[in-house]
Amino acid sequence: MDLDTAGAASRLMTRLDDFSAFTDEPGKLTRLYLSPSYRAACDQFAKWAVEAGMSARIDAVGNVRARYEGKSAGAPALMIGSHIDTVRDAGRFDGNLGALAALAVVEQLAEKGIRLDHALEVVAIGDEEGVRFSTAMTGSRALAGGLSATAMEAKDKQGVTVGEALKAFGGDPERAYSARARGVAAFVELHIEQGPVLEAKGLALGVVGAINGATRMLVTVTGLAGHAGCVPMDLRRDAVAAAAEMILAVEARAKAEPDLVATVGRLEVEPGAVNVIPGLARFSLDVRSPRDEWRRRAVSDIHAAATQIAARRHVETVMQPVHEAPAYVCDARIVAGFDRALTGMGLPAFHLPSGAGHDTMVMGALAPAGMLFVRCAGGVSHNPAESITGEDGALALAALTRFALEFKG
Amino acid sequence: MDLDTAGAASRLMTRLDDFSAFTDEPGKLTRLYLSPSYRAACDQFAKWAVEAGMSARIDAVGNVRARYEGKSAGAPALMIGSHIDTVRDAGRFDGNLGALAALAVVEQLAEKGIRLDHALEVVAIGDEEGVRFSTAMTGSRALAGGLSATAMEAKDKQGVTVGEALKAFGGDPERAYSARARGVAAFVELHIEQGPVLEAKGLALGVVGAINGATRMLVTVTGLAGHAGCVPMDLRRDAVAAAAEMILAVEARAKAEPDLVATVGRLEVEPGAVNVIPGLARFSLDVRSPRDEWRRRAVSDIHAAATQIAARRHVETVMQPVHEAPAYVCDARIVAGFDRALTGMGLPAFHLPSGAGHDTMVMGALAPAGMLFVRCAGGVSHNPAESITGEDGALALAALTRFALEFKG
Repeated sequence: MDLDTAGAASRLMTRLDDFSAFTDEPGKLTRLYLSPSYRAACDQFAKWAVEAGMSARIDAVGNVRARYEGKSAGAPALMIGSHIDTVRDAGRFDGNLGALAALAVVEQLAEKGIRLDHALEVVAIGDEEGVRFSTAMTGSRALAGGLSATAMEAKDKQGVTVGEALKAFGGDPERAYSARARGVAAFVELHIEQGPVLEAKGLALGVVGAINGATRMLVTVTGLAGHAGCVPMDLRRDAVAAAAEMILAVEARAKAEPDLVATVGRLEVEPGAVNVIPGLARFSLDVRSPRDEWRRRAVSDIHAAATQIAARRHVETVMQPVHEAPAYVCDARIVAGFDRALTGMGLPAFHLPSGAGHDTMVMGALAPAGMLFVRCAGGVSHNPAESITGEDGALALAALTRFALEFKG
Repeated sequence: MDLDTAGAASRLMTRLDDFSAFTDEPGKLTRLYLSPSYRAACDQFAKWAVEAGMSARIDAVGNVRARYEGKSAGAPALMIGSHIDTVRDAGRFDGNLGALAALAVVEQLAEKGIRLDHALEVVAIGDEEGVRFSTAMTGSRALAGGLSATAMEAKDKQGVTVGEALKAFGGDPERAYSARARGVAAFVELHIEQGPVLEAKGLALGVVGAINGATRMLVTVTGLAGHAGCVPMDLRRDAVAAAAEMILAVEARAKAEPDLVATVGRLEVEPGAVNVIPGLARFSLDVRSPRDEWRRRAVSDIHAAATQIAARRHVETVMQPVHEAPAYVCDARIVAGFDRALTGMGLPAFHLPSGAGHDTMVMGALAPAGMLFVRCAGGVSHNPAESITGEDGALALAALTRFALEFKG
């Protein structure tokens, strides 16, 4: 097929710029779920979809839903999309790239009047970032039929519930369950990597093998505070030295296994004075892996190492679980489809896990799902400096288009 | 000589209780330099000295100075004492024990009408703790002739200078230099250990070999912040993992050498979020040793280790010196004198360094000086739970008395 991919890619990059004008905060991009700028962005998105010859509507929970029929009306659909809500002071590509690229796939077909065996459904999803309310993924959960019974009651900082905000937005909280998607053969999402792997490998694109599951723990190490001058080394029960040894054990365990990552992001010591041996250290532990069993084994190994370190140093340690999310292993047929698209373009079919969560992991409960990652500069995301090159954008759109054309429902 | 050491020791323990009633804060012991309760404590101390047959006065900077003449008037003096100012919410023994024990030495002689070849000067010193003003050791510095030109200008939190507080106290800031002691053959100080070494060794008493010098540094480790899920282990420049390795290097270096201690008491990481790899870690380093050259070598080794760790991990590290205090090596004749006193009592002549600073290190500039440590429960100090047993108090007084009797100026 002779699509104008170069023209579509150029328009996509321009549109990403234009679309970033929908913001709650002038001068920066902040588009929180169900805010006025989120509404305006939904309307613009739907307008573009209609202009491309699609039917479009905003569903009960504030997702934009557009449909491009296949050769026969009511055919199973390949759903393509991503989120259009953002974090505060966001970059232009996180989410928006995948949603606008989905639109661009359809536009290329519509320009040539091409219909596929399957329908294409384009979605622009809300609440992926979970910044406004004490919840996240409301949009994809509703699409996948996984909305919790209390989802409409989650509040923002002003005490406004999702349900109230939905009414103000023009949605319908009482019919939230009606947003569940029907007739979806598969879901795919294009997204910036938000990490440095593709850049380090010198690759524009990568196929996501799994969205990592995560375990978060709060680790407390209790030793004995003492005078920095008066307690000899061999009589110390130094909480920070014990914590330091545990942190290196965490790092060593993660390094010993591909695709496993473990991070100590928070660390506090008490009493925290120059001349006092710390009696207490508290640190966070975040362990992620593409497979739940690998992650659980790593957490168990780290627990064993910390226990051993604590015993040897005569300190106490408690590891308190605070969060657990299962991994989503991307559907093998979707992964194979992206592999074919990339190799067909002469690119290596490189696989990598996603360390961050995405709508795809929620959509996996509805239909076979998968993701394509595009390289972003320095791995920087959630930041105005977030960027991709026009060349990479064009490759990403071409690969996504190729996937859609070759898709067999 | 047939002294009533048991009676003197019993009175000493009672007096330590009574003396703790001189406080700025009812219900706890807080006796800041030049406060009303400090004045009342000085007056009581001078009264006891006079009752023991000594001449007593309060000098220009607020030290109590009492003299018990030897066989001939004007003989060189052995000066014995410690500080009677305290930290906030202090224990009863830190400082006060040494000052009141000095008085108790003289009382035993006076009761029997014994005069020695040398005079005994008893001092109760002010400002050792340095809690009230932005200075410390004003009392001993004045005694040793080491008062700085700006010592009277140091302010407390209310903006009151030492000079103003001295006037209100009844001292004479203009004549501060007159407090310099004359005719002092030696200075000795009995003090609680404020550490756990004697308790761990099962010993009541120990001879201080040196008062440790200290180097304090602020160490900054700069890596690169990143998403805890998205950056693989081998692409990280994790500031907290680098800091952890440095902290263990600090510990290992200190453990490799007797009497050297090194402490990381403060540690902060930034940005400090569960799901962000820390881009920055900042920690304090406190290194102490009985010999300045040993300490400097340890600091240099730690610096080299940190530099090597930083280079291997592709992070930056800066070690900024913030404080340096030289060690005071106790006078060999004083140390030998305490050794003889202990062995004469059938006790081992155990030596240990002092990790904390004391008036003795200042007095060493005036005359040969040394210290005797007494075991305190759990090594606890600067805390109302500070305690020594009556038995240990009696042994300490006996050893100090023996030293004074056997002293050869």
